Amino acid sequence: MYICDNIGNCEGHLTFAGIDTTLLAEKYGTPLYLMDEDKIRENCRIYKNAFTKYFGENALPLFASKSASFKRLYEIMAEEKMGIDVVSSGEVYTAIKAGFDLKNAYFHSNNKTDFDIEFAIQNGIGYFVVDNIQELERINFEAGKQGKKQDILLRLTPGIDPHTFEAISTGKVDSKFGSAIETGQAEIITCQALEMENINLCGFHCHIGSQIFETEPFYKAAEVMLEFISLIKEKYCYEISQLNLGGGYGVRYTNNDPVFDIDGSIKQVAKSIKEICEIKKLSIPKILMEPGRSIVANAGMTLYTAGTVKEIPGFKSYVSIDGGMTDNPRYALYKADYTVLNASKADKTPDFKCSVVGRCCESGDIIQENVNLVKPTRGEIIAVCTTGAYNYSMASNYNRVGKPPVIMLSKGKDYIAVKGETLEDIVRNDI
Amino acid sequence: MYICDNIGNCEGHLTFAGIDTTLLAEKYGTPLYLMDEDKIRENCRIYKNAFTKYFGENALPLFASKSASFKRLYEIMAEEKMGIDVVSSGEVYTAIKAGFDLKNAYFHSNNKTDFDIEFAIQNGIGYFVVDNIQELERINFEAGKQGKKQDILLRLTPGIDPHTFEAISTGKVDSKFGSAIETGQAEIITCQALEMENINLCGFHCHIGSQIFETEPFYKAAEVMLEFISLIKEKYCYEISQLNLGGGYGVRYTNNDPVFDIDGSIKQVAKSIKEICEIKKLSIPKILMEPGRSIVANAGMTLYTAGTVKEIPGFKSYVSIDGGMTDNPRYALYKADYTVLNASKADKTPDFKCSVVGRCCESGDIIQENVNLVKPTRGEIIAVCTTGAYNYSMASNYNRVGKPPVIMLSKGKDYIAVKGETLEDIVRNDI
Repeated sequence: MYICDNIGNCEGHLTFAGIDTTLLAEKYGTPLYLMDEDKIRENCRIYKNAFTKYFGENALPLFASKSASFKRLYEIMAEEKMGIDVVSSGEVYTAIKAGFDLKNAYFHSNNKTDFDIEFAIQNGIGYFVVDNIQELERINFEAGKQGKKQDILLRLTPGIDPHTFEAISTGKVDSKFGSAIETGQAEIITCQALEMENINLCGFHCHIGSQIFETEPFYKAAEVMLEFISLIKEKYCYEISQLNLGGGYGVRYTNNDPVFDIDGSIKQVAKSIKEICEIKKLSIPKILMEPGRSIVANAGMTLYTAGTVKEIPGFKSYVSIDGGMTDNPRYALYKADYTVLNASKADKTPDFKCSVVGRCCESGDIIQENVNLVKPTRGEIIAVCTTGAYNYSMASNYNRVGKPPVIMLSKGKDYIAVKGETLEDIVRNDI
Repeated sequence: MYICDNIGNCEGHLTFAGIDTTLLAEKYGTPLYLMDEDKIRENCRIYKNAFTKYFGENALPLFASKSASFKRLYEIMAEEKMGIDVVSSGEVYTAIKAGFDLKNAYFHSNNKTDFDIEFAIQNGIGYFVVDNIQELERINFEAGKQGKKQDILLRLTPGIDPHTFEAISTGKVDSKFGSAIETGQAEIITCQALEMENINLCGFHCHIGSQIFETEPFYKAAEVMLEFISLIKEKYCYEISQLNLGGGYGVRYTNNDPVFDIDGSIKQVAKSIKEICEIKKLSIPKILMEPGRSIVANAGMTLYTAGTVKEIPGFKSYVSIDGGMTDNPRYALYKADYTVLNASKADKTPDFKCSVVGRCCESGDIIQENVNLVKPTRGEIIAVCTTGAYNYSMASNYNRVGKPPVIMLSKGKDYIAVKGETLEDIVRNDI
């Protein structure tokens, strides 16, 4: 299965999306984000096809923009007939600039500001995924002001705790997100939504976490949600039309991660939903999910130039690269795993044990510990695989380092999707 | 001692640098970085005065730019006659744009790129703090190409392990930074530097870590460094003229942090250096240190608007603010402590236990856990104290959230030092 083809071309250089990575590094400089457009489309179609097959024609996967957000991606999502999940005015604005039709956009966040709400309604956002009562009141107020009736989903916490990182586990009752079913707060907010003049309650949303390689948490969540939908139907004679099961399917960062069959998992979840709906005499709602990582992660690769190669006798070795936590903070934040390769010598057998570290003036600026690498020399190209999600989107300017460009690859061609930040960009807002 | 004056004015609003914070929030919007210019200058002068008193006239504190870097800060550093430590071309460029004379700039980093080296030499960088041999060779090459003899210091690891966070402890032998004395690599690189045609070896540098509240690690480091200086003098008849002891003095984020007497600590370190130099018959070198955090941290405060206030019966409560890990990733990275206040009700007694969380679509987006706050309502202003270091400088655009503006306060007046990022800024580089 795909982490990286890891095969040198005839010069021994790593290829990505069929292109010699060292030539891309030479053409655009490093650090450099690469994204394989064809792979992104392929990943979208896995969801689109599975959704149509198992959930029916009106089901819609929403691309979770927070994993990677820039104009070109929204154009691709529009072409692939994906919906989108957005979490800020910045993401909404980017989607608008890309010409994405916002009727298939779902606005998330545990804390939408007054500006977010006003701006999104003005621009015809399809749905808010409402987190809490204060926000619901604000949306009702703003929609009234603008003379609109706003479609919404309510974000609920189903009390499911998948076995994943604490920082990205979100389905538990004790969460900053949503209203808990267990505490009765979900029912209270539902009643309030039903009574509000400018609110049209279309459905419920839950999100149990990230980087999950099991199907069970998803159908357990679906079960809890459908029970709640059934309760609301019985008590209030109101049947919602949409059920959003959130995101969370895992991707393979290294060979230690399992191979996961998304199509198979969706099939199981669909079967479970159908059975429950039959028992509970519910119409099968329009099913939504919010894949982000599993759409873009394995479509990404980051290229760096090796600088310092430091061997400390009796201790360990370090390979410093010309990027780091500025373009990929995931090791610093979560000790995230990655596969790292010497792209200049992809045909050689790796036998140099080292830590691959960033250029930032901070010990925690590490890309990966315990890497087995073909020992590089200054100037060779280092590739980090599976960086399409939560790398560009989380990039900072720490140490006043500019963000690298994002280069898209498709059918053997490369083009710029996001320009790299220049020195001038760095000081642009300084007075 | 200063964390925050924590005193409401006659309206019960928190003041900072003598100004009502809620008026600043209203004027500039939130999130908002505030920096107290007068406090920054006061902190600079603590170092300047102590250096002159204890180390002599030619000693020089260098502001560690990575803690906070923008044009206005370099203007202030120039006026306060501070040197600077920079770690990237971006920081060099910013200093140039501020008119800072680079002869007092020291270029750090474990991995200076070829571009960094060329650019910095072209612009007359005072010193490189050279990390390793590959870099030394490159600087020698580039200086030769530009017909210059380049002043340098060598970064050494003295093998001191202060009791601080792993991620910001850097003086150990096993480090991505510098050349270790213990392994003999420091002596090897010194010999190489001495032999290079275009290199002028001026001194040695060490940096033992960050957020240190003891003096002992500093004079232990000085002792190791002076022994090494003495060894080099004896073996190679070469006495260096500068000793840079790095940064690392701690600042008080909460009342649990100790009060630390920087002047007293410098006095002790100076005494120790003089004694050792006398014993070892060394001239007292020009002493440098690199304070960053202790110059700007307590001069900063971040203002947010409270959004969601969520009480989960049987679990805990959450206050969501309109910023988060995008403008302050230090809790997400290090579980860093902060003092958090309801600025709109600073005269009330806090009795609401909660987690103060950010707006990002991520459970780990937390500003602080276990806060005792005056319970806010949507729209009230939340202040996070001591955010002047490693907040603006580490900010990201995760979730496509723009960076907040930096507002300087001085003598009762406020002015913009860095403009906030607009929606247009967010998509500026998208094709």
